[in-house]
Amino acid sequence: MPDHFQLLHKDSSCPARTGMVVTPNGKIQTPIFMPVGTNATVKAMRPEDLKDAGTQIILANTYHLYLRPGHHLVSQMGGLHRFMAWDRPILTDSGGFQVYSLTDLRKITEEGVKFRSHIDGSAHLLTPELSISIQESLGADIIMCFDECPPADADRSYVESSLAMTSRWATRCKAAHTRKDQLLFGIVQGGRFNDLRLRSLHELQKTGFDGYALGGLSVGEEKQVMHDVMEACGEQLPPEYPRYIMGIGTPEDLVEAVWRGYDMFDCVMPSRNARNGMLFTSTGRVNIKCKQYEADHEPIDPECGCYVCRNYSRAYLRHLFRSGEILASMLNTHHNISWYLKLMAKMREAISLDKFTLFRKDFYHQQKKTAEYFKEEQTL
Amino acid sequence: MPDHFQLLHKDSSCPARTGMVVTPNGKIQTPIFMPVGTNATVKAMRPEDLKDAGTQIILANTYHLYLRPGHHLVSQMGGLHRFMAWDRPILTDSGGFQVYSLTDLRKITEEGVKFRSHIDGSAHLLTPELSISIQESLGADIIMCFDECPPADADRSYVESSLAMTSRWATRCKAAHTRKDQLLFGIVQGGRFNDLRLRSLHELQKTGFDGYALGGLSVGEEKQVMHDVMEACGEQLPPEYPRYIMGIGTPEDLVEAVWRGYDMFDCVMPSRNARNGMLFTSTGRVNIKCKQYEADHEPIDPECGCYVCRNYSRAYLRHLFRSGEILASMLNTHHNISWYLKLMAKMREAISLDKFTLFRKDFYHQQKKTAEYFKEEQTL
Repeated sequence: MPDHFQLLHKDSSCPARTGMVVTPNGKIQTPIFMPVGTNATVKAMRPEDLKDAGTQIILANTYHLYLRPGHHLVSQMGGLHRFMAWDRPILTDSGGFQVYSLTDLRKITEEGVKFRSHIDGSAHLLTPELSISIQESLGADIIMCFDECPPADADRSYVESSLAMTSRWATRCKAAHTRKDQLLFGIVQGGRFNDLRLRSLHELQKTGFDGYALGGLSVGEEKQVMHDVMEACGEQLPPEYPRYIMGIGTPEDLVEAVWRGYDMFDCVMPSRNARNGMLFTSTGRVNIKCKQYEADHEPIDPECGCYVCRNYSRAYLRHLFRSGEILASMLNTHHNISWYLKLMAKMREAISLDKFTLFRKDFYHQQKKTAEYFKEEQTL
Repeated sequence: MPDHFQLLHKDSSCPARTGMVVTPNGKIQTPIFMPVGTNATVKAMRPEDLKDAGTQIILANTYHLYLRPGHHLVSQMGGLHRFMAWDRPILTDSGGFQVYSLTDLRKITEEGVKFRSHIDGSAHLLTPELSISIQESLGADIIMCFDECPPADADRSYVESSLAMTSRWATRCKAAHTRKDQLLFGIVQGGRFNDLRLRSLHELQKTGFDGYALGGLSVGEEKQVMHDVMEACGEQLPPEYPRYIMGIGTPEDLVEAVWRGYDMFDCVMPSRNARNGMLFTSTGRVNIKCKQYEADHEPIDPECGCYVCRNYSRAYLRHLFRSGEILASMLNTHHNISWYLKLMAKMREAISLDKFTLFRKDFYHQQKKTAEYFKEEQTL
């Protein structure tokens, strides 16, 4: 049994579970959502605001920090925690997902990925060893293996050879990892092919990591495919290690993933949608731009109770958004992150009472506007 | 003696003075600087941040709030204080300065000013009566007379007839003012002509106001002209009323105005410059973009002690600014407003010790980089 993870309770009605991840900068209650702080800041949120919103751990992007301000500078400034004045846990991704997103600017070989910076076009080679070295300089509590993330529509033969390389890269990452205070997680790839997912997991387990993540989900595949992969892997993942699904997701994705026994999640959705005026509530999404909120005295979500809901009306938030005010981004982000983290807290509570299956049913019942929202989202 | 203003102490070495303005939402220690909250928000600052920075009173813009979200809506939402969750004093300007700034979009007559909205081009007529009505709906603690603000290069005959109309408008404003819980200030115009300034003041005094402001300064005139007008009016302004110079200014402008016996000031400079990466320090301005701060562990101003200086390095602030992060605007604004308000507090302290003339000398000695900055500012 690893000593950095404690499984606290398993729901009797489903695979959902509560746990605790122990890191150098504090303990994390799982299931947990990690707000994304790409450039060493969760956009529009100070560390105090993140804490007020209930944030236990944030994610920062290796790719962005490598390019600007540079990992050597961050290290010289005392590491990422000190640089950004955040004294709770941080997880850094490997940079892999970002460089693959630069579709026209990168080339993948066994050695690593050659790419050009989105900032100044400069040429770089990111290897498993460099990714680990950067992540060690940044000094996050949890770091990730460098992996290849194939597109959702990649064919089986591509995915098969890709995951084989990802497995070899994972072994190189583990060999390169010298800072033993950091937890190193492996990333399961294999696209929509459950047998390849299990092969990937099996190979990672042979190398041995401090936690296991599913990569390459929420990249365009059908929800049913995502759920199938979650289930297939969920049955095989070693229960005594933390399980992380990268890059998800909607509140519904989080509920589905927790129901299937996953512990950690990250996504730009609550913060990015906030900046676009889309707010999460206990009865579904709200588009704060809408005329109907013009003279509305109510808080965004009367059941929420976060800093924003305690202090501001929908009418004021609508005014700020329409006026293009920075405070709109600040307050909307504060609410959405608070709301996501309250959702996670409610899920932990439900699991501890063996009521997660009931919670899931109630959640869908309450999120009445969701279907409606998914239509709206297209036009945002 | 009016009961809304107490003159606390007059410096023995110069006309500088400390005082207290009493308003429905609290007392204001003078001399004081008012951060500008144009659209019912001081850009990038929450009310809690403003309080943390030492803000006693903010200014909001009648023109902007009239157009969006509309004064009737603000009134329906319980007034400006409640709408924006700010429970300390607010001053609203009259809208006059903004409509005159719309050079190509407005026409001035005795009745008022016809203008077109900068937002949607819609046609409006702003009169002294409407300005007061809007300001009563907004519900600020201190409201301003609707005035005409001639350009700095206006000739004497234009200024003379303009100030005569401003005096008639001031009388109309006073007649229109029904909410006696609000203080109503008159605005002295007269451009660079000291005798016209005194004529304007004399006419306003005949009508009688709760405070007197100098308008039409810092509109392009030489600093010497600004100082001459301050001095000429300073000698004639009734000492038992608060004295406000609108729209200034630089830290140097504030020191010069306080030295000449003025009490209240507002300017977008600390907040706007913050968003452009220009920060105020005890040794002069800092351009946080500069390469020299790349790996600088120091706070912006080691002598400041504000929230930002206690928590963040110049290197981090430079990184945020270069990355275009919202947090850059938030932290830079927090620092600059804190710095301005600490400067005002130091001035009040110096006056209470009869040392303001010495303070002024020391201030210029410390602001070594100022001259250098004024050159840089051109190229921002």
